[in-house]
Amino acid sequence: MKIVAAKKILKANDQQAAEIRSQLDAAGVFGVNLVGSPGAGKTTLLEALFAKLKGRVKPAVIEGDIAGTIDAVRMEEIGVPVVQINTDGACHLDANMIASSIDGLDLSSVDMLVIENVGNLVCTAGYDLGERLRIVVLSTSEGDDKAHKYPAIFQGSQAMFITKTDLLPYTKFDVERITADYKRLAPNGEVFLVSAVGGEGIAEAADWLETRCNKPR
Amino acid sequence: MKIVAAKKILKANDQQAAEIRSQLDAAGVFGVNLVGSPGAGKTTLLEALFAKLKGRVKPAVIEGDIAGTIDAVRMEEIGVPVVQINTDGACHLDANMIASSIDGLDLSSVDMLVIENVGNLVCTAGYDLGERLRIVVLSTSEGDDKAHKYPAIFQGSQAMFITKTDLLPYTKFDVERITADYKRLAPNGEVFLVSAVGGEGIAEAADWLETRCNKPR
Repeated sequence: MKIVAAKKILKANDQQAAEIRSQLDAAGVFGVNLVGSPGAGKTTLLEALFAKLKGRVKPAVIEGDIAGTIDAVRMEEIGVPVVQINTDGACHLDANMIASSIDGLDLSSVDMLVIENVGNLVCTAGYDLGERLRIVVLSTSEGDDKAHKYPAIFQGSQAMFITKTDLLPYTKFDVERITADYKRLAPNGEVFLVSAVGGEGIAEAADWLETRCNKPR
Repeated sequence: MKIVAAKKILKANDQQAAEIRSQLDAAGVFGVNLVGSPGAGKTTLLEALFAKLKGRVKPAVIEGDIAGTIDAVRMEEIGVPVVQINTDGACHLDANMIASSIDGLDLSSVDMLVIENVGNLVCTAGYDLGERLRIVVLSTSEGDDKAHKYPAIFQGSQAMFITKTDLLPYTKFDVERITADYKRLAPNGEVFLVSAVGGEGIAEAADWLETRCNKPR
């Protein structure tokens, strides 16, 4: 595991992000920016998806956290190459942090690079990281009003993964309401209902990710 | 309901916060800054606490949200005076926003002013709002690693309210682990286990809040 400290912004974010996108495209690597609240279940979702994609897609991960390496250790434990970025208080990753981190990965043996952003529904919305796909992770226990209250992050996304569907019987989460709100913000966005605990929807989501990963760019 | 748009920062935050604290103290109003992730259950907790404190403490609320008035409407529905601040994308409230909002409240009929911050475990940590008490709300469904991953917001707090304890049987949340992490960051911090659904711990938390509210400042 490499650990990269956040640096000062060196280049304008959009310019740096465009360069990363070109770099990843040239290397045949599909970039995914995974965003969501703290505790939405981003890391657990990755564990479930990578297990399903074993032998089909070679993943690598960049973990963004304010502090610590808890999530990166979990990725190492399942054999996924990982770089940890500690943002030292910053509430989101930016393209310069990603540019510094990519050097720590052997892109020639990677099909899909998932950037797990800092847990934050607000700040992460404003920063293109050079990805081809932005996925918002929202857990059923967070409530179905989140697209209404935090529109920007949903608006810029290509998919919403509703996690922890195993908790649906114990919450008042209305899947139809959040889906309608989401579709207003992202008319072409895909919606997946998944449970890493029960396995619901993981196979379908993994198939979709693999298809997107293999699509010519 | 008054709606206040976020303005440019006019005064240094700490100076403005100190002025708010003096203003609230002079008016006999106890200020609370309520922080937590999106969907941690902050508004639902307030509904439960205010129901329990009815006739004992006169509350008012300032609601901070990126967009919308969902939470402010909920406060109006239970008869609590409320001012909505829309931050227009900003990931936290600041003392200047609070200063603008307080004018919308009749402080002479308020004992406790709860500022429900934007759902965010990161940005909210850096901004004193002139409160006397900062409470971090963390739901059991968010996972027990949050104090480790987002230390700053816990460090500056006087209490942690662990919400949604009704979901404990369905999650792997370890109360002892999070409490130990929290106590390392905030040795004098109080910990309450509450469920707005089942009512667990609400009476004790309300009693504690009332005591803090009535303590001479």
